[in-house]
Amino acid sequence: MDQQTKSKVTEFLETSSVRLGPEELMSLIAGVTAGPGTDGQMGAPEDWTILIGETLSDGEKQALMELLASAGDTAAENDIPMADRLALLQSQMKIQDLDGFLVPLADEHQGEYVPKHAGRLAWLTGFTGSAGLAVILKDQARLFVDGRYTLQAGEQVDSKLFDISHLVDQPPTNWIKENLKKGDQLGFDPWLHTNDGAQKYRRAAESVGASLVAATPNPLDQVWVNQPPPPLWPVSTHDISHSGASSVEKRGAIASAIGEAGEDFVVLTAPDSIAWLANIRGGDVPYTPFVLAFAILKANGELRIYTDRRKLPPSTEAQLEDGIWILDRSEFDAGLSELGKSKATVRVDPATAAESIFTRLKDAGAKITRQTDPCQLLKACKNETELSGMRAAHTRDGVALVRFLSWLAENGAAGKITEMDAARRVDEFRRDGEMIQGLSFPTISGAGANGAIVHYRVTPESNAALKTGSLYLVDSGAQYLDGTTDVTRTVAIGDPTPEMVECFTNVLKGHIALASQRFPEGTTGSQLDVLARMELWREGLDYDHGTGHGVGSFLGVHEGPQRISKVPNRVALKPGMVISNEPGYYKTGEFGIRIENLIAVRECAAGAPNGKKFLEFEVLTLAPIDLNLIEPTMLEGRELAWLNQYHARVRDTLAPLVGEDTRTWLETATRTL
Amino acid sequence: MDQQTKSKVTEFLETSSVRLGPEELMSLIAGVTAGPGTDGQMGAPEDWTILIGETLSDGEKQALMELLASAGDTAAENDIPMADRLALLQSQMKIQDLDGFLVPLADEHQGEYVPKHAGRLAWLTGFTGSAGLAVILKDQARLFVDGRYTLQAGEQVDSKLFDISHLVDQPPTNWIKENLKKGDQLGFDPWLHTNDGAQKYRRAAESVGASLVAATPNPLDQVWVNQPPPPLWPVSTHDISHSGASSVEKRGAIASAIGEAGEDFVVLTAPDSIAWLANIRGGDVPYTPFVLAFAILKANGELRIYTDRRKLPPSTEAQLEDGIWILDRSEFDAGLSELGKSKATVRVDPATAAESIFTRLKDAGAKITRQTDPCQLLKACKNETELSGMRAAHTRDGVALVRFLSWLAENGAAGKITEMDAARRVDEFRRDGEMIQGLSFPTISGAGANGAIVHYRVTPESNAALKTGSLYLVDSGAQYLDGTTDVTRTVAIGDPTPEMVECFTNVLKGHIALASQRFPEGTTGSQLDVLARMELWREGLDYDHGTGHGVGSFLGVHEGPQRISKVPNRVALKPGMVISNEPGYYKTGEFGIRIENLIAVRECAAGAPNGKKFLEFEVLTLAPIDLNLIEPTMLEGRELAWLNQYHARVRDTLAPLVGEDTRTWLETATRTL
Repeated sequence: MDQQTKSKVTEFLETSSVRLGPEELMSLIAGVTAGPGTDGQMGAPEDWTILIGETLSDGEKQALMELLASAGDTAAENDIPMADRLALLQSQMKIQDLDGFLVPLADEHQGEYVPKHAGRLAWLTGFTGSAGLAVILKDQARLFVDGRYTLQAGEQVDSKLFDISHLVDQPPTNWIKENLKKGDQLGFDPWLHTNDGAQKYRRAAESVGASLVAATPNPLDQVWVNQPPPPLWPVSTHDISHSGASSVEKRGAIASAIGEAGEDFVVLTAPDSIAWLANIRGGDVPYTPFVLAFAILKANGELRIYTDRRKLPPSTEAQLEDGIWILDRSEFDAGLSELGKSKATVRVDPATAAESIFTRLKDAGAKITRQTDPCQLLKACKNETELSGMRAAHTRDGVALVRFLSWLAENGAAGKITEMDAARRVDEFRRDGEMIQGLSFPTISGAGANGAIVHYRVTPESNAALKTGSLYLVDSGAQYLDGTTDVTRTVAIGDPTPEMVECFTNVLKGHIALASQRFPEGTTGSQLDVLARMELWREGLDYDHGTGHGVGSFLGVHEGPQRISKVPNRVALKPGMVISNEPGYYKTGEFGIRIENLIAVRECAAGAPNGKKFLEFEVLTLAPIDLNLIEPTMLEGRELAWLNQYHARVRDTLAPLVGEDTRTWLETATRTL
Repeated sequence: MDQQTKSKVTEFLETSSVRLGPEELMSLIAGVTAGPGTDGQMGAPEDWTILIGETLSDGEKQALMELLASAGDTAAENDIPMADRLALLQSQMKIQDLDGFLVPLADEHQGEYVPKHAGRLAWLTGFTGSAGLAVILKDQARLFVDGRYTLQAGEQVDSKLFDISHLVDQPPTNWIKENLKKGDQLGFDPWLHTNDGAQKYRRAAESVGASLVAATPNPLDQVWVNQPPPPLWPVSTHDISHSGASSVEKRGAIASAIGEAGEDFVVLTAPDSIAWLANIRGGDVPYTPFVLAFAILKANGELRIYTDRRKLPPSTEAQLEDGIWILDRSEFDAGLSELGKSKATVRVDPATAAESIFTRLKDAGAKITRQTDPCQLLKACKNETELSGMRAAHTRDGVALVRFLSWLAENGAAGKITEMDAARRVDEFRRDGEMIQGLSFPTISGAGANGAIVHYRVTPESNAALKTGSLYLVDSGAQYLDGTTDVTRTVAIGDPTPEMVECFTNVLKGHIALASQRFPEGTTGSQLDVLARMELWREGLDYDHGTGHGVGSFLGVHEGPQRISKVPNRVALKPGMVISNEPGYYKTGEFGIRIENLIAVRECAAGAPNGKKFLEFEVLTLAPIDLNLIEPTMLEGRELAWLNQYHARVRDTLAPLVGEDTRTWLETATRTL
């Protein structure tokens, strides 16, 4: 923080009712600055001021917002030049007696979105993609990225400093084996690798006589002068009117499960598990309303949550349910050691928990059972309240989408709308709705050839205009207090080509086949995946991504354990699970097609013969599917019936909720074929 | 062997040219008697006499056949009464200091069909089903069988001696934990359990402070007075005109693969792998023309096969390709020890190789790599010669089936034909064809309600007559020198009910969906499984078995590694793989439906856009699908087209090969809908 901000802080404290020292206030502001940016932020921009005081005047809030803006402006200044960072890290490695060091893109929770202070890979290399690993040796450094990112990495990274390899074709473990020698010490930060993950690198190192050693402190953090602090954003409770079950109830269920398994405790490291279990929400990372925290649940249902205590306003702490204790993050290590001292049996999930937790527990004497996080499956199966919330959120989301699509139909073909304009409009329409807290992921707004890039994210440089005769693909979603949405529509701008129509209709046939399939209890998403692909396969086409991911209830837009994918998965689909149905087709350099609805698993109303239970999907998403892109003669009777019924439901639900112009458009857009 | 047979043997040797001692001859005859019975035998009944001499006169062969018959008549006599066997085993366990002993249904190769001398479970308990395990303790004994066999086990087993449990719902490992105590020694025969399997029981025993110990010799074998010897049947070479690739070529491919993996040797324990690799065939177990043997392949391509040397007539040994050595089974242990002494790296498949092999190798100092049997995948992908052979075998099989189905259409509805009559007829029609060596599995011939029993095997007691207004299901196949067949047809006897027609048509829709699906390279059978079920699922119906199993080329009718099943499997379907397509529906107590063709994977003739390789299926099986059971209005255009094209191919291929009456029937049975 620069001198000017510091004096503003002193000035504010002198004139306000706030009883904090200047260092305390500046530290809080730095934490908020280190949180999500404007797009991914939860709630209103000034919500964070509750961390300073719960009874601030509007003027005080205004002043704090100005302080925040001023702090943010200077955060990235005074940092070490990019060109010097690698060498600095290498000298620090030497001090810590390391011959190598692993820099993954990961935080302590193995989350999908990492907070700024965990952006070590980008700080070191310049690479800003969503997955990657750098392996730093004394005299060379190599960045591993997957096929999506080889181009981007080449542009962002200084090739004089880093070689770039393909993460899958040239696995880092192979490179480690080839480049480490006997006696070498390969360092890793045991908070940033899972137990399973560390094991992989340990084997590679040991196969050539080297060893994998925990590097504490993290040598990169030692040289990253302006590393942001962990993020701060107020924790709030998630009302039972949205969660549908008290934390006491949930903890009762989980605790008896771990008790039956003969375990005394479970260590929870997934923030979404903790948010669900304690009925709390936060805003520490972009797009996902959870609180970065660890937790220990005892077999009697008592829950200790370890997080930065400053994130808890007194009003939130007062609302916490019985049996929940908030402890500071700094006490977590001691908490683990205590479990060890009492020789407890402790469940930890080896696929997600940091290696550091295993080491600490083992060293302290605990007996570890390597089992799945017990919250994941229960969280995935939404209760009736959560499902009602999901339906309500999807109705609001549908209103926004219909307003957007009608606006697009009116204006899209003129050649004046850019991808960024469109993304902004869909966001604005959503923010007109109630209970919205923020986006659930960065909007994918792809015109023409950009639509064929599956993980496209528009930048000022790539920002294309929507042109007549092309397709426009928009994949977007929001976090509402009562549910999370994620929807993709592909729209013809002007007249589509016959090829576009044929491909779109085949994607739609797959979408319908999956949406309308009944299936027996015990069926997994991997078993159903082919239904969404079979029509494309007939034409020699396919799409190179999964068909469906689980979605949380005002939580992660990507959650497990279920998924619909080519990759085998043994988790059966269960009533209440919400999952996406998103087949697509991408013709590189020309157009992209994806049709995505969220669907919820439910029991079939009609019982099956033989008394066996069958399941089916309820469609949650409400938005027209572009009839201009459908060739009706390619649809069979039951496919046509599904489409007409779906559109009738969209129309009947949304028409009363939109203005007259939009309604007129909606009626045409959902007409019976 | 009784005194009378012995004197016949002496008499024969005195008058014949055979230069064997009486004990030698009797031992050979006992070995042949211990082989497959008439149904499952390969080749002609007198083929075994080549083991006695290669230049016998017809009279000598005749005399030997009489000796065999006489020996067989007396084999089961003088055995210990069933009621005394358990107690005898328990005393022997005491002598060997065992508190428990595991009696699995398994041979040393973990084969599907076990030879008579490995029929320990049936000898001890009376239970003759195809899967099960007995756990014998000092003062109690329990038989574990799966859901198919609970009824049968209840009827066959003396409940005063054995309790019966469900193998899946009440796993033996749980029972072991509950009934063993600290210090107990649970014995197992390390030749009858895989490494993976033994590990499971070891963990269970150790979790309660007991231990799993190798029981050598097998205490049951010690008390089974009349235990048959291992089976004997002549080994023959499999001509390159059928195998399409020399053993030298195959060994070259496998050897370079193991060499690249850094392995010096691979131990082969699967007899079908050895038969394929060495281009040899035999008749040691029912229905599958392989030789019971072990083998060690060196990374230079040299193959040592360990088996009873008496099974190799000099003429076969002379035809063996370069680099193949036959050693006696008794030398196998020494062979393993040698690998250990040379500190070799040895690949062994932990899923199929006996625990004993691991122990021996480890004790001797070998480095073991636990990897899949390298022959399995290569064997599964048939070459062009094998595929041509498969097509030719299926044409011959089709002729037999069409003759049978036409006979059935003529005679089935009169109420006079029984399941056994029908099974005999289909067998007779097949044996009229060329190159037939035997059946590929016991024919399933199920009338009415018996058709609903998935693994039904007709017995004199169950033998029902085919009645008008019912369905008849026949699942049968044969081993031909050039290929293996497996086909199921379901036929209406008289007029079917609308329910039968509806169910049959839905099964057919699933069959067609799978048969006609194109799919990208890399797709597994588990991904495709749902295609065969989706129409049934719509109606709340399903079938409780896999959709497809791999089939060998004049080898096992069930082979891996590919399969089409709900159970996840990571083996991609590859060109040349032959697999069954057999959806069904079973209404307990009323009727069973199954439609099974063998299909072969091939590359799509038409290339896919984007240059991606797509695969499709070629249908091998040629036999009409009963049009009386199809409701044409339930079929979509492309389903109807598939059916008509298939029937046209059946008609065009088989009509020239059958008599006039059959041809007339065939033309009606394959008419265009």
